Amino acid sequence: MQYASVSMEKAISELSRLPGIGRKSAQRLVFHLLKTSKPEVQSLAEALIAIKEKIRSCSVCFNITEADPCPICKSEKRDRSIVCVVEEANDLLAIEKTGEYRGLYHVLGGALSPLEGIGPDDLHIRELLTRLNGSTDEVILATNPNTEGEATALYLERLIKPLAMRVTRIARGLPVGSDLEYADAMTLTRALEGRVTI
Amino acid sequence: MQYASVSMEKAISELSRLPGIGRKSAQRLVFHLLKTSKPEVQSLAEALIAIKEKIRSCSVCFNITEADPCPICKSEKRDRSIVCVVEEANDLLAIEKTGEYRGLYHVLGGALSPLEGIGPDDLHIRELLTRLNGSTDEVILATNPNTEGEATALYLERLIKPLAMRVTRIARGLPVGSDLEYADAMTLTRALEGRVTI
Repeated sequence: MQYASVSMEKAISELSRLPGIGRKSAQRLVFHLLKTSKPEVQSLAEALIAIKEKIRSCSVCFNITEADPCPICKSEKRDRSIVCVVEEANDLLAIEKTGEYRGLYHVLGGALSPLEGIGPDDLHIRELLTRLNGSTDEVILATNPNTEGEATALYLERLIKPLAMRVTRIARGLPVGSDLEYADAMTLTRALEGRVTI
Repeated sequence: MQYASVSMEKAISELSRLPGIGRKSAQRLVFHLLKTSKPEVQSLAEALIAIKEKIRSCSVCFNITEADPCPICKSEKRDRSIVCVVEEANDLLAIEKTGEYRGLYHVLGGALSPLEGIGPDDLHIRELLTRLNGSTDEVILATNPNTEGEATALYLERLIKPLAMRVTRIARGLPVGSDLEYADAMTLTRALEGRVTI
């Protein structure tokens, strides 16, 4: 792009660093922003800076929050006897969206992955063990149902069970609205293993 | 997303206004930015503001530029006897990338579209006619090969031909590397009509 201006080139390269945005999309975004009013672009830029300035980790559960401790940890309405362990803050948001869970959370910050060099010390596991005390009745392991998530759940189960509390794992089975015909063998196996009496 | 912070909600809604970015992608981008270092986010935000502050329209050809007139209009190396008319500045960039064209450009700022209420006065057509003078030998109409682009080319042809200069239209035919079998009838028709002696 020989004649593109320096500031355009810069904006395109900055945008194309974002996940899921390639050079072509970045270029389209820049052309869009060129047609957008200046206050609107300013507002977008400020919103991006604000997330870095205002959002931090909750010191208790490592959820992302503007206030520490986060509203969930602070809330009087939540059931403090259950802790749901998730990999990332967006997993927490997904569970919150269901509106079905009233307990607390603990965000690990990832899953164990020897291949990527992520060990127990890279996750908030020590903090989880410190949090669990006499008032905790149940720990729900809600890590992702993939290799890393399962390994992490297994690892945590072995650490938490000796603390004499109930450890559960979210159910793995056929997603609602899906079709047996198109389910993969692993999911189907899990669905059969996890069958419940009706 | 009940417990997401205000600044996160704001960043998500700002990002999801951009073309091709839905709420889900915006959320993913925000989570990515949360993990990115502050200087990097700052640099992205500044790059976005810079494109609004530094980039303007060239007063001659309406290309986007930081200096007015733009480097192409100012260049001594360009052939001033040919003007290539395109709809948008990114069309100009696409042609520049080929490295095959050495003439000048004129960016219309869109195409005629009665359905969207875009008439000749909404495009830089008057400025185009003012630019064309004795030193112009040829005007290449490089509007898009779709309904609006063809209509715009037809409209311009009728206006420019009386000025006694050569008016050409970019060739429409099969794209290089494509397959006759999968070409649509309209493209194939154009390819046959536009056949050249070898």
